[in-house]
Amino acid sequence: MNTSHTNAIAALEDQFGDLAPIKARIKQHHIETPSWAYGNSGTRFKVFPQPGVPRNAFEKLEDAACVHRFTGVASSVALHIPWDKVDDFSKLDAHAKELGIRIGAINPNLFQEEDYKLGSLTHENARIRAKAIDHLRECIDIANTVKSDIISLWFADGTNYPGQGDFRRRKRWMQEGLQACYDAMPATMRMLVEYKFFEPGFYHTDIADWGMSYAFCKHLGDRAQVLIDLGHHALGTNIEHIVAFLIDEGKMGGFHFNNKKYADDDVSVGSINPYELFLIYNELAAAEDDPAVHMNVAYMIDQSHNLKPKIEEMIQSVVNCQAAYARALLVNRGALREAQKNGDIVAAEEILQSAYQTDVRPLLAQLRSEMGIDPDPIAAFRASGYQNTINSHRDTNKSCPTAGYPV
Amino acid sequence: MNTSHTNAIAALEDQFGDLAPIKARIKQHHIETPSWAYGNSGTRFKVFPQPGVPRNAFEKLEDAACVHRFTGVASSVALHIPWDKVDDFSKLDAHAKELGIRIGAINPNLFQEEDYKLGSLTHENARIRAKAIDHLRECIDIANTVKSDIISLWFADGTNYPGQGDFRRRKRWMQEGLQACYDAMPATMRMLVEYKFFEPGFYHTDIADWGMSYAFCKHLGDRAQVLIDLGHHALGTNIEHIVAFLIDEGKMGGFHFNNKKYADDDVSVGSINPYELFLIYNELAAAEDDPAVHMNVAYMIDQSHNLKPKIEEMIQSVVNCQAAYARALLVNRGALREAQKNGDIVAAEEILQSAYQTDVRPLLAQLRSEMGIDPDPIAAFRASGYQNTINSHRDTNKSCPTAGYPV
Amino acid sequence: MNTSHTNAIAALEDQFGDLAPIKARIKQHHIETPSWAYGNSGTRFKVFPQPGVPRNAFEKLEDAACVHRFTGVASSVALHIPWDKVDDFSKLDAHAKELGIRIGAINPNLFQEEDYKLGSLTHENARIRAKAIDHLRECIDIANTVKSDIISLWFADGTNYPGQGDFRRRKRWMQEGLQACYDAMPATMRMLVEYKFFEPGFYHTDIADWGMSYAFCKHLGDRAQVLIDLGHHALGTNIEHIVAFLIDEGKMGGFHFNNKKYADDDVSVGSINPYELFLIYNELAAAEDDPAVHMNVAYMIDQSHNLKPKIEEMIQSVVNCQAAYARALLVNRGALREAQKNGDIVAAEEILQSAYQTDVRPLLAQLRSEMGIDPDPIAAFRASGYQNTINSHRDTNKSCPTAGYPV
Amino acid sequence: MNTSHTNAIAALEDQFGDLAPIKARIKQHHIETPSWAYGNSGTRFKVFPQPGVPRNAFEKLEDAACVHRFTGVASSVALHIPWDKVDDFSKLDAHAKELGIRIGAINPNLFQEEDYKLGSLTHENARIRAKAIDHLRECIDIANTVKSDIISLWFADGTNYPGQGDFRRRKRWMQEGLQACYDAMPATMRMLVEYKFFEPGFYHTDIADWGMSYAFCKHLGDRAQVLIDLGHHALGTNIEHIVAFLIDEGKMGGFHFNNKKYADDDVSVGSINPYELFLIYNELAAAEDDPAVHMNVAYMIDQSHNLKPKIEEMIQSVVNCQAAYARALLVNRGALREAQKNGDIVAAEEILQSAYQTDVRPLLAQLRSEMGIDPDPIAAFRASGYQNTINSHRDTNKSCPTAGYPV
Repeated sequence: MNTSHTNAIAALEDQFGDLAPIKARIKQHHIETPSWAYGNSGTRFKVFPQPGVPRNAFEKLEDAACVHRFTGVASSVALHIPWDKVDDFSKLDAHAKELGIRIGAINPNLFQEEDYKLGSLTHENARIRAKAIDHLRECIDIANTVKSDIISLWFADGTNYPGQGDFRRRKRWMQEGLQACYDAMPATMRMLVEYKFFEPGFYHTDIADWGMSYAFCKHLGDRAQVLIDLGHHALGTNIEHIVAFLIDEGKMGGFHFNNKKYADDDVSVGSINPYELFLIYNELAAAEDDPAVHMNVAYMIDQSHNLKPKIEEMIQSVVNCQAAYARALLVNRGALREAQKNGDIVAAEEILQSAYQTDVRPLLAQLRSEMGIDPDPIAAFRASGYQNTINSHRDTNKSCPTAGYPV
Repeated sequence: MNTSHTNAIAALEDQFGDLAPIKARIKQHHIETPSWAYGNSGTRFKVFPQPGVPRNAFEKLEDAACVHRFTGVASSVALHIPWDKVDDFSKLDAHAKELGIRIGAINPNLFQEEDYKLGSLTHENARIRAKAIDHLRECIDIANTVKSDIISLWFADGTNYPGQGDFRRRKRWMQEGLQACYDAMPATMRMLVEYKFFEPGFYHTDIADWGMSYAFCKHLGDRAQVLIDLGHHALGTNIEHIVAFLIDEGKMGGFHFNNKKYADDDVSVGSINPYELFLIYNELAAAEDDPAVHMNVAYMIDQSHNLKPKIEEMIQSVVNCQAAYARALLVNRGALREAQKNGDIVAAEEILQSAYQTDVRPLLAQLRSEMGIDPDPIAAFRASGYQNTINSHRDTNKSCPTAGYPV
Repeated sequence: MNTSHTNAIAALEDQFGDLAPIKARIKQHHIETPSWAYGNSGTRFKVFPQPGVPRNAFEKLEDAACVHRFTGVASSVALHIPWDKVDDFSKLDAHAKELGIRIGAINPNLFQEEDYKLGSLTHENARIRAKAIDHLRECIDIANTVKSDIISLWFADGTNYPGQGDFRRRKRWMQEGLQACYDAMPATMRMLVEYKFFEPGFYHTDIADWGMSYAFCKHLGDRAQVLIDLGHHALGTNIEHIVAFLIDEGKMGGFHFNNKKYADDDVSVGSINPYELFLIYNELAAAEDDPAVHMNVAYMIDQSHNLKPKIEEMIQSVVNCQAAYARALLVNRGALREAQKNGDIVAAEEILQSAYQTDVRPLLAQLRSEMGIDPDPIAAFRASGYQNTINSHRDTNKSCPTAGYPV
Repeated sequence: MNTSHTNAIAALEDQFGDLAPIKARIKQHHIETPSWAYGNSGTRFKVFPQPGVPRNAFEKLEDAACVHRFTGVASSVALHIPWDKVDDFSKLDAHAKELGIRIGAINPNLFQEEDYKLGSLTHENARIRAKAIDHLRECIDIANTVKSDIISLWFADGTNYPGQGDFRRRKRWMQEGLQACYDAMPATMRMLVEYKFFEPGFYHTDIADWGMSYAFCKHLGDRAQVLIDLGHHALGTNIEHIVAFLIDEGKMGGFHFNNKKYADDDVSVGSINPYELFLIYNELAAAEDDPAVHMNVAYMIDQSHNLKPKIEEMIQSVVNCQAAYARALLVNRGALREAQKNGDIVAAEEILQSAYQTDVRPLLAQLRSEMGIDPDPIAAFRASGYQNTINSHRDTNKSCPTAGYPV
């Protein structure tokens, strides 16, 4: 903590008083990272492989643990089945525990087998629909094994051309499949249902927007909720409004954080429109402050680290979430409410802007020091040698020492 | 019916067999026109006034009756309150009957009084919320008087800036207001709830998409349903999918037909993307053919006739709806279903395209002749002298003879 | 300057060293405000009038001078002809001088006369095209009288329907009209040519994007340049890229600052996507630092103050531009260039983010104090009583004392 | 030609008089198909392989020749280098001739080598820029060998994050690289420069819109022209307006036909918005009729046949282009011009709609019979057994008899 930070912290305390309660909330705000973002990914034009990418689910957990080590708030990791399939999931669970993290949401994959070319739960062929349901049940079993209480569903189901599918029939099949999955869940498990505007379906997507996801979930029951991926909307969509709406309906289940400028670009969260990220967190922080609201939201990252080094980008993304949440906690809610009552638009806006424009980096640096981690996560990761280690071992097919990395 | 038409009809019969059942359905497909589209409208930059526009609700009905006279299928007219407010609505109702039409949906207006600058049902001020509810009740009374069974709600409620409004509070107020209106409706009346992506709210709109409208309606009951305005979506939205989804949910209540290239442009229906209009009608026609579906859809036009002569544009628009419906009725549903089952995307698409590419103008000309109206509505209107009559009388403040026009 | 500010300034100096050069550049960065934003405006649905709006061009200058008084960097005001037409423009010019400001860009209006319903420079009728050119020449005369060296052109010319206009003929007419205007300009005057994606044309706009504006300007000569209005692009457009491209082509002439979430919403600059505003300023600041670049950019605001109090919103907007420019000046260009050379995407991005996340409000407060104005412009304006004065005088048709307001 | 067709043709002749001149133009309207669309393609989520796909460039030519055989107007095929690289291009050229087709545009590939991860012509590293230029020169050599007079350039160059690249430096590098390529072309060769809104660059694309492509081409010279890919625009973009603008500037070089609903979906041309395709052809047909216009446009298809069988989709696409062109040729240009002069928007639009709504399938069937090919290309292809032949031979690594297929 240098002089500059000391001055900056003093300035923050002058403005916001005791920072301890805010820091306490930020420390508790955990962001789940996805196993698949540690592996290679790309566009339809090219996947540029990166050095040191994990060779299996165990190594993915190690990279996730590394992100947790440098951020302190990434203590769980989402799995994608069958990409992360292992012979014995209890071993994977144990490995996570050893690494100081845990396994989070289980994500079935219903889009990479030949059978699913024209749909999974919504396929015309009853055999393929049944097969898809079986896979969902398999994922619930895995979730039970690894003590995860979330099954997180995204369907690529859709069509490319008018006439290709029967919308209403497909809707019925989707509801049936979701019901079968819902029925298979233990009472402690939640189902999160993601929606997407388009891609890979280029004409229609069976769950195309939050309204469809919401309707399916309402028919299922309380433990089915909507998952919002920030990149899955039409341009211009006011996502924070949807967040607030779903919170009020008790259907705000979780997030896939990332960012976009155009379509589902899956670039780093906060990299294109950080004010939007802040406004989303503003709704979440306001709801946390509201005693009438009961919510249980899973915060997860879902990105494609096509060009940036994967672990660095993940650390950067977790930090960006944290910064947005910190700014949201600085919003003076009483004054905001007063300005709204008075119809004072300028004042209301300036209250949000005042929190947003506050430089929260000194605050985050301080709380990291309090947590016993480096105040500058990216620099610390770069200095750690972790990337070199995995590059030299994984790419040469050697046994990689990261499993034993002190966390 | 000239030789060309005779040849064309013969070609259609060769392809589709007996056209009588199709013609019968088209004749029954009525499109409601809106009183407000007969008056001047424009953009925020300029309203270019047109000659002969109606001076009051009675004259608007006369123009609507004129559209019905030349199309045969525009037998009702929607009112906007207070724009169409008259001292005695039973007289207006009687006038409609004399003109051979009837009064359709009643549309409250909650956006043009100073009080509503920052909202109506969602206003922070309880007095203004109550005033808005009173206006809704007044409109229900008017609907009762004119024997209309639809109250059609669009709200300009929204905000322009982050922080201006409290999303969740506003949602609660919206639900309360809608509930008060719902409770005031007689058991025979339906409430249609419109949504809109943006404008005049430039940051958020309280009912921003079909999902919000759907959720409000679900909380209200069976007689609250969603109204789709074709111009109220984000670019790229698959509207026909939403139509099918709502049909299956029993929540497809009505349409405001128009078209757009960019935002809520309110240009003539079918003028920018006629294939989209066909695909929407395709879902409706398919649902009509499905005995399991019970639907009651109000088909209405809502456009801004900024540049085209208003009555001509309305006739053109009704005809465009009719043409789209006609093409949708030509779809070979059995073959389409078979292609879908087989996963034969090309065949399925070609079946739709085959119906769409069929030139239905000879068919429509023939059925108009059967209905006793001119086969070419726009030409007939132009030849009728109606526009000259209203121009010369209404603009010079003379009593206008159109009321007595033979219908 | 309270303790909090002192601490904050100290923190900035720790990080960025001597702030004086940065403050000097910010003080020289002037933003022109538009006369028309002080008057009433609204959407096509409703114009909500505000208290105290100016009754004529002289009073508009007074409000502009008020914005300058509280910001210190809004020393010129753009006029819109004929909205600001006065009998003697030299008197208006003198009035501006008395108020401590000057008249900036002259903006012709070719969209509010009946004649222009179907176009101005691109109208089919040669008489109307000639009339439009005459108006452009009249505006050049006015510019000469008020010693303005910029004529700023936006055309509403476009069509609403396919077939309505002949694109290539209209292009030729546009080029001819612009050439006639260009030929009438004195050698010291520049022409800025604005483009717009849509509205009020709902099918096509004759100058629809920067490429069309650029092509017209290239054919004209060096003193014709492109004007970028931030709200006039398709959603997703990378505006900062266009800025850089035009700078390199010597065609970056000026800006109309505002913001948008959907279409041409004309909301306050920086209110929806402040990072985008920063990235635009980043290109401008980088070009200023590049000795190879010669640019002469007019920075102007163009907004519709529909709901917020007009003068407050203008002050807020000027401040937002200033803050974005300040952040752009904090970018470490040497380090950024180095990161780009190394292909270190994370580092390059973090350098931009580091500048962007810096809280520049203490810096701006300090430089305002140095300029002899209040460090908090909005609060100072609210405390000044100016709004009350104009409300009570202008709305009651009294002579308003603001003309003599000390500036 | 059955009775229905005879009736339909009679109806067309009643309306449009002698159809021979129209048919003659359609027969001359050739559409180039791309070699790469015969191979497997998909989304970033999954490439679903299809049976019978070509194993090399020779077999791709055979499939292209098959499309030509069933459509009569697909007589050339575009190559992608290095995908279609062969040891001896003169053999490939000879193979094309034997198959009754010829090799068309040569398309370099600068996006699938590791070196190009961060750019090709715009890469920071001079070695990589030089390598990219070398590849362009290699492609010009190939073009010379196969007697192609078009080199068609699309660059994936762009960035994913703010700060990643220096826009102005990259612009200079792009211009330099294009100049080097231009200088290497023989005097008979044209360079077509494609642009794209986004993807794979998710923050910026170095040639992002037609304006950038146009500016680069202007700096190069007359033989550099713009290539329009229908899927490479922001949603809502009026493409036909750009077409007309470029025609007037002498810079309309070629098309990549396909369609989109959302992003660069690359679905079959005419499948999502067939009216837009018609309006584009309407500009082209009008320019053909204008003696003042000299244009030389390359008509090419560029699609991803992810789900539909590849050859069928190509045939369907060629037919869709043909149908759009046929409708455009039916537009009554004299009447349209008259309506435009009169400001009769409804009449102008109805003239376009009248051509568009005409069922041109009988006309196309007739001209195909005149050309000696089957009137129904898709049905004829399905009946031909070609697909079965390639499936059974290519997938089993047998020598495939299609090379000797009678064309």
